[in-house]
Amino acid sequence: MRHLLDTRTLSRDDAILILDTAEDMAATQQREVKKLPTLRGKTVVNLFFEDSTRTRISFEAAAKRLSADVINFTAKGSSVSKGESLKDTAQTLQAIGADGVVIRHPASGAPARLASSGWIDAGVLNAGDGTHEHPTQALLDAFTMRRRLFGADSRGRDLDGVSVVIVGDIAHSRVARSNLWLLNALGAHVSFVAPETLLPYGARTWPVTNHHSLDEALRVERPDVVMMLRIQSERMHAAFFPNEREYARNWGLDDARLARLSERAIVMHPGPMNRGLEISSRAADSPRSTVLEQVTNGVSVRMAALYLLLSGERGAQPDPDPTSSREGETA
Amino acid sequence: MRHLLDTRTLSRDDAILILDTAEDMAATQQREVKKLPTLRGKTVVNLFFEDSTRTRISFEAAAKRLSADVINFTAKGSSVSKGESLKDTAQTLQAIGADGVVIRHPASGAPARLASSGWIDAGVLNAGDGTHEHPTQALLDAFTMRRRLFGADSRGRDLDGVSVVIVGDIAHSRVARSNLWLLNALGAHVSFVAPETLLPYGARTWPVTNHHSLDEALRVERPDVVMMLRIQSERMHAAFFPNEREYARNWGLDDARLARLSERAIVMHPGPMNRGLEISSRAADSPRSTVLEQVTNGVSVRMAALYLLLSGERGAQPDPDPTSSREGETA
Amino acid sequence: MRHLLDTRTLSRDDAILILDTAEDMAATQQREVKKLPTLRGKTVVNLFFEDSTRTRISFEAAAKRLSADVINFTAKGSSVSKGESLKDTAQTLQAIGADGVVIRHPASGAPARLASSGWIDAGVLNAGDGTHEHPTQALLDAFTMRRRLFGADSRGRDLDGVSVVIVGDIAHSRVARSNLWLLNALGAHVSFVAPETLLPYGARTWPVTNHHSLDEALRVERPDVVMMLRIQSERMHAAFFPNEREYARNWGLDDARLARLSERAIVMHPGPMNRGLEISSRAADSPRSTVLEQVTNGVSVRMAALYLLLSGERGAQPDPDPTSSREGETA
Repeated sequence: MRHLLDTRTLSRDDAILILDTAEDMAATQQREVKKLPTLRGKTVVNLFFEDSTRTRISFEAAAKRLSADVINFTAKGSSVSKGESLKDTAQTLQAIGADGVVIRHPASGAPARLASSGWIDAGVLNAGDGTHEHPTQALLDAFTMRRRLFGADSRGRDLDGVSVVIVGDIAHSRVARSNLWLLNALGAHVSFVAPETLLPYGARTWPVTNHHSLDEALRVERPDVVMMLRIQSERMHAAFFPNEREYARNWGLDDARLARLSERAIVMHPGPMNRGLEISSRAADSPRSTVLEQVTNGVSVRMAALYLLLSGERGAQPDPDPTSSREGETA
Repeated sequence: MRHLLDTRTLSRDDAILILDTAEDMAATQQREVKKLPTLRGKTVVNLFFEDSTRTRISFEAAAKRLSADVINFTAKGSSVSKGESLKDTAQTLQAIGADGVVIRHPASGAPARLASSGWIDAGVLNAGDGTHEHPTQALLDAFTMRRRLFGADSRGRDLDGVSVVIVGDIAHSRVARSNLWLLNALGAHVSFVAPETLLPYGARTWPVTNHHSLDEALRVERPDVVMMLRIQSERMHAAFFPNEREYARNWGLDDARLARLSERAIVMHPGPMNRGLEISSRAADSPRSTVLEQVTNGVSVRMAALYLLLSGERGAQPDPDPTSSREGETA
Repeated sequence: MRHLLDTRTLSRDDAILILDTAEDMAATQQREVKKLPTLRGKTVVNLFFEDSTRTRISFEAAAKRLSADVINFTAKGSSVSKGESLKDTAQTLQAIGADGVVIRHPASGAPARLASSGWIDAGVLNAGDGTHEHPTQALLDAFTMRRRLFGADSRGRDLDGVSVVIVGDIAHSRVARSNLWLLNALGAHVSFVAPETLLPYGARTWPVTNHHSLDEALRVERPDVVMMLRIQSERMHAAFFPNEREYARNWGLDDARLARLSERAIVMHPGPMNRGLEISSRAADSPRSTVLEQVTNGVSVRMAALYLLLSGERGAQPDPDPTSSREGETA
């Protein structure tokens, strides 16, 4: 693997390699000294064009546990906000010898552009781009499912036959997209549940079963995993969105629905949760809930991805391609 | 010690342990290589919900000198400003494996809430909360007093019999509160001097002598230590505040008052000073002044606190308690 | 060397020492583990009162490659924005034991003031101050010239006889100033080319040939190096500035001018470039262009400067000089 840009093009074998490596990493995190020397001398840049404290901190902790040097670069208060292009920034990172770039960007496709441009030789890790993908989130979700459903000794396994129901604002969710592709590669069956207005048009042609009724989905799909997405309350006032009460009644995981889940089913959420809206407190606090495990597993999965992409020698430097801030760049 | 939340509940023995450990730390800071391996593999998060460059940098330097990994998290530009609760944030820190959390928060009690909530297992260090406490400031002040009054070889000693006069806006000062409790535990006698409007109501029942006249306090208390608090000029326009000239005349440490101090008396200030307002230039620059020593000692005291709280194994993980951003959290 | 404040007072021998040390540093950056233990236990503070992601990241990478601890301090969101003076800040840095301070400041002379004040004992590195100087930029430019014109094995050499033409908004450019002094010390011949309104008045008395016509300068000076400065488009609307089209026609390095350069001539730019304005895409992308090398060389030159200033013991602590935020400080 040279980059981790999406799960859509991630092979089943590479996905399992990441999950298995994450198991190794998780084991080291139980030691008193959690630090590994693996990436000593490597430089990882967190290139965040959007706020995301949780994701940035998770990557930063992961890189530091591997002894990499971490440089944080947030677009707020940087020359990027004064019109410096993604290309300029990338070339600066290349020139200072970045070995890995963790990028969060509001534009879908920005990480892929960075990786394929020839501007940098560094490994690129997508930490969320527009409504496109958030691959490490999907990987930590899959890691969490595998551990919960098949136990700690599940190395090498995929998620064959697992039924996953993903509920919420699918249309705007890169988490839903990344999960869909990864879960398909791992052999799981995926269903989306959303109001008509919150299902993306493309979903009709994707390898997914679409439902508008959560009750029906729970009955028909017999899920092993119910993944509730976070409702962005700033979108609640938009015309295409039901009001909060209607949303909670029809698409929230309330106590009655929780009680109808099969015995082994787990409840996932990428956090932070809106209790009383997409999930009831009882569901959130139940032993089925994996919310905190997901965050913890995030560090192990990101350690694995950084390790697999950045250890050892990287290829030769790309040809120089001088900077320009007057061409139409993404940033 | 599991946390350092306040000085009100800090025992005399624990306070002296911190001061003595800080002496050890100060000794290491004279070496050419100032770094100790003590907290290698530990992760310290600076969780700052209020600006405080000085305090943040002091804790950051202290943690790095002990070889900890430091992750900075300022609430500005983070998801906290978008309504994420203290609980959400805490649980993220727990999940990424933070060993210590240094928290600065505008709400009094936020650090205690963090420590007692069960949300995290990390050691919590209060770096200033509302008008409540700022315990490491009081500890570095006590450390500075002990060194100045009793010499470098004062390990094991408390401040028995020392007379400390604290002057200024007591009502809004967490520094004054933290000093009061700590100095009492260490056997010192504490007096507050402030205009009527700048003394908190509670001070009438605290173990402190209250004065409204600085001249009287200097005469009656014969202080070994005069601690001038910083006047926040943004409060100067409030109705309950005397004007600057009147303040300086009645409550400033001017040259005449400086001349009346006893020979061994020292002048303290948490910095930065308003020369000509709460303190004259002569007082600020006199050999009695400990302002810069206080800042230097701050690193040693914070190294001691981080060491005592974070070295060795911490207790087991608390029970999972899923995140929520819709409940009424402090943040 | 105790500080690196400007190139105007930098001796030829010190300049060559920095360039030769930078060659050593560049060699280490080809290794798989790029990190050196040289500054282990030292603390470098990046004190940025102006945005400059590129420069900050370059210094941060350089310091971390030398194993220093790095503390970032940006004035935005710090107590500096609440009126804390440069002196207060400096004394805090002194007190926490900073060994090096990399300062970027909008006021010309702020780094020199910091270094000469006695406030701190740390080595001060000017990372750009007002329209005054940006010495590490000039050093990385000279390093790039020496390598390109004389090959990798050019240790010990200066730039005797090299003709350098610097084109653009000289009046506001600290890069032009720092290059002028350094290039003179190294024996190069420097010419400035600018519209009448963009030449500083002082340039008439400096050791430089001034031209208003780029065509004439290229014909008369037969440059080995053409250095194009970045046009700040926010200045384009000012009355003293030609419009973009006129600027590009008269002072841009277009394809025709590129074709007239001598065979060995190189094209430099501090980046990011405005293609089509001060430089054509063909010039920017030509093999003569050194834009990315300049950025890469920046890390080596900054490693060299940090190493030369900060390795070994620093002098004794300066006398205490208590803080004040009410005197008229630069910040």
